[in-house]
Amino acid sequence: MVLLSGGIDSATTLAFAKKMDMETYALSFRYGQRHAVELEAAKRIAQHFNCFEHLIADIDLRIIGGSALTAEIDVPKKRDLHDLSKKIPVTYVPARNAIFLSYALAWAEVIGSTDIFIGVNAVDFSGYPDCRPEFIKAFENMANLATKASVEEDKRVKIHAPLIAMSKAQIIQKGISLGVDYSFTHSCYDPSAEGLACGECDSCLLRLAGFRTAGIKDPIQYK
Amino acid sequence: MVLLSGGIDSATTLAFAKKMDMETYALSFRYGQRHAVELEAAKRIAQHFNCFEHLIADIDLRIIGGSALTAEIDVPKKRDLHDLSKKIPVTYVPARNAIFLSYALAWAEVIGSTDIFIGVNAVDFSGYPDCRPEFIKAFENMANLATKASVEEDKRVKIHAPLIAMSKAQIIQKGISLGVDYSFTHSCYDPSAEGLACGECDSCLLRLAGFRTAGIKDPIQYK
Repeated sequence: MVLLSGGIDSATTLAFAKKMDMETYALSFRYGQRHAVELEAAKRIAQHFNCFEHLIADIDLRIIGGSALTAEIDVPKKRDLHDLSKKIPVTYVPARNAIFLSYALAWAEVIGSTDIFIGVNAVDFSGYPDCRPEFIKAFENMANLATKASVEEDKRVKIHAPLIAMSKAQIIQKGISLGVDYSFTHSCYDPSAEGLACGECDSCLLRLAGFRTAGIKDPIQYK
Repeated sequence: MVLLSGGIDSATTLAFAKKMDMETYALSFRYGQRHAVELEAAKRIAQHFNCFEHLIADIDLRIIGGSALTAEIDVPKKRDLHDLSKKIPVTYVPARNAIFLSYALAWAEVIGSTDIFIGVNAVDFSGYPDCRPEFIKAFENMANLATKASVEEDKRVKIHAPLIAMSKAQIIQKGISLGVDYSFTHSCYDPSAEGLACGECDSCLLRLAGFRTAGIKDPIQYK
């Protein structure tokens, strides 16, 4: 069970799961994100890696708001990458990974899986609290008290976060060795109507810096 | 922030929060439950207690399935109450409380609340793993690592489960002393098209036994 947003990290995480010879189920969310075009990327990636099933759950987080990704708040542009780690950005979506992982936990239980993969990483720090190892560990602990499978079958859920200690450049290099085609991925928070990346939001800047450091050309188009 | 299903437990939990002189926000879910009529009960209760806001989130859990409440599985009827605690029933919805509490965590962060109330109880054991104190504790621990508020403002979220050690009869007696009008509530998992309770599902049986033990007449109509 792989959480698949359609970005670099989740695509690479899916490649990790495939490498472990697992049958993969991909889970994506239409949550009212302004960059819903990422779901097209998620579909291409799930198909490329022959996922057994790809589920897109409709969960409108705009009713909750509180984020530049789901409410009428401007996405920051052209920030200095060194400033990113100083403060949690307005693109933070309240409790998003807790919500996403809870859905993954539910679906994993139904299909009988005990392995949930999430592409969080805490090095090129996005500033998101729910991307830290201590959060992942606490979620896993909670998950193993939440389900029927944990009580009746003593099934232990494992939250895999294979990228958690990797930089963006390392992720890209590893992903290429695992067969990820990054031309399928989408990272931009604020794409054009045609779906082209802006090249200026935090997510684009981290992506571009990652490719630059890895010495690899970013295969996607920018506007 | 009170999770409000529209049943006896959540209505009583809301009364507890009101008693603590809190401004209350009620959160309900249209999750594809066959007893969606409970949302009408939730609206009546939220209005009765003057909730500052009542949000009904649309999250279709039928795509995940795995439960008699969200999939084409029959709701068990006329079971012996003593058998209920032996096995987790098919009305268990995978990871439901993890999902509901994650939404509550998100909305609580947006409105600046640190108090989340949930009407779980582990005495008249419904058999649901995510109603146990150890689950609630583990969720609270995870919640305090998940959010921007926990990192930047050192705000600690508290998950209140005031009914956790109470029997159904005790809950009803306490609720009446707190001004709950149980004629507004809905408990049945498998109501008639007109919304009348069946009187035979586990939820109806627990409710009826609770009123009986409390020596109070259940004010709702059964079919």
